[in-house]
Amino acid sequence: MKYGIVAFPSKKVQDFANSYRKRYDPHYALITPHMTIKGVFEANENEIKKIAENVAHVAKDHKPFTLKTSKVSSFAPVTNAIYFKVEPTEDLISLHKSLNAIGFNDDETYAFVPHITIAQKMNASEHDDIYPQLKMIGAEFEEQIDRIHLLYQLEDGSWTVYETFRLSGAE
Amino acid sequence: MKYGIVAFPSKKVQDFANSYRKRYDPHYALITPHMTIKGVFEANENEIKKIAENVAHVAKDHKPFTLKTSKVSSFAPVTNAIYFKVEPTEDLISLHKSLNAIGFNDDETYAFVPHITIAQKMNASEHDDIYPQLKMIGAEFEEQIDRIHLLYQLEDGSWTVYETFRLSGAE
Repeated sequence: MKYGIVAFPSKKVQDFANSYRKRYDPHYALITPHMTIKGVFEANENEIKKIAENVAHVAKDHKPFTLKTSKVSSFAPVTNAIYFKVEPTEDLISLHKSLNAIGFNDDETYAFVPHITIAQKMNASEHDDIYPQLKMIGAEFEEQIDRIHLLYQLEDGSWTVYETFRLSGAE
Repeated sequence: MKYGIVAFPSKKVQDFANSYRKRYDPHYALITPHMTIKGVFEANENEIKKIAENVAHVAKDHKPFTLKTSKVSSFAPVTNAIYFKVEPTEDLISLHKSLNAIGFNDDETYAFVPHITIAQKMNASEHDDIYPQLKMIGAEFEEQIDRIHLLYQLEDGSWTVYETFRLSGAE
């Protein structure tokens, strides 16, 4: 089964992101707007119990972090995805590293570029057409995130929550 | 903001339900297959913190319950919704009552008929056409549910998880 760990921004940010995702993101109906903190990984039902325990430990060790978005950016030409750029604060990077230390990571290793996707799966010309428009929306938000969510994927591609973990660390 | 409390059945049951919801349930993309335990209610961001604390207490007092579905049924003629009928066990009814005792309930009071919706928003003739077909699928499942989820609704109608609560009571 496929799992992933995300943070959901506030309703305000999600509604704002959705106003664009609705048109530009084919994953719009599969999951609400989110920032991935630990990318998709495979685990079976026994493994996930142990993983969830480990995530609980990580969450107890980390305090809530500030999710600050500053602008709209793009992964092109690597991949034609447009997103709200999330500031890679020390707290967030540290949380990401601790979650990856659990194991069960993607085979491929990417640099961690925290983001909230609002458009994807476009061809190059669609991307080049839409990107300048989306750049202008100026996604400036700042909020506290005090929980993370372990999700799993259904056969139709949609994501269901497995468990929520409060970031309850002192620092 | 609108909130609700649900249980998600296993991936197997969700995939099975989705194979029908995809065609027959316009809420298909808004939420994954679920059983509502506390119906939609309104609360603001301060109220929900207190409510979440109360839900945590309820979850600590209740043990995991058996979710047993036996057949496909329909709410027609009250409403044209078709669902997997969930056996109203004592554990489940008790959990439902405890969650409603928190307050913030629907104005209208319905009897609690636990179910997993697979088709809705049809007109009467569509319903009467589809219902006999769906009745034949024979939804017989039995599994343990050890957690419940507090969700909130975005402006586009989709649901995001606010928090998960483990049913950790001894009995």
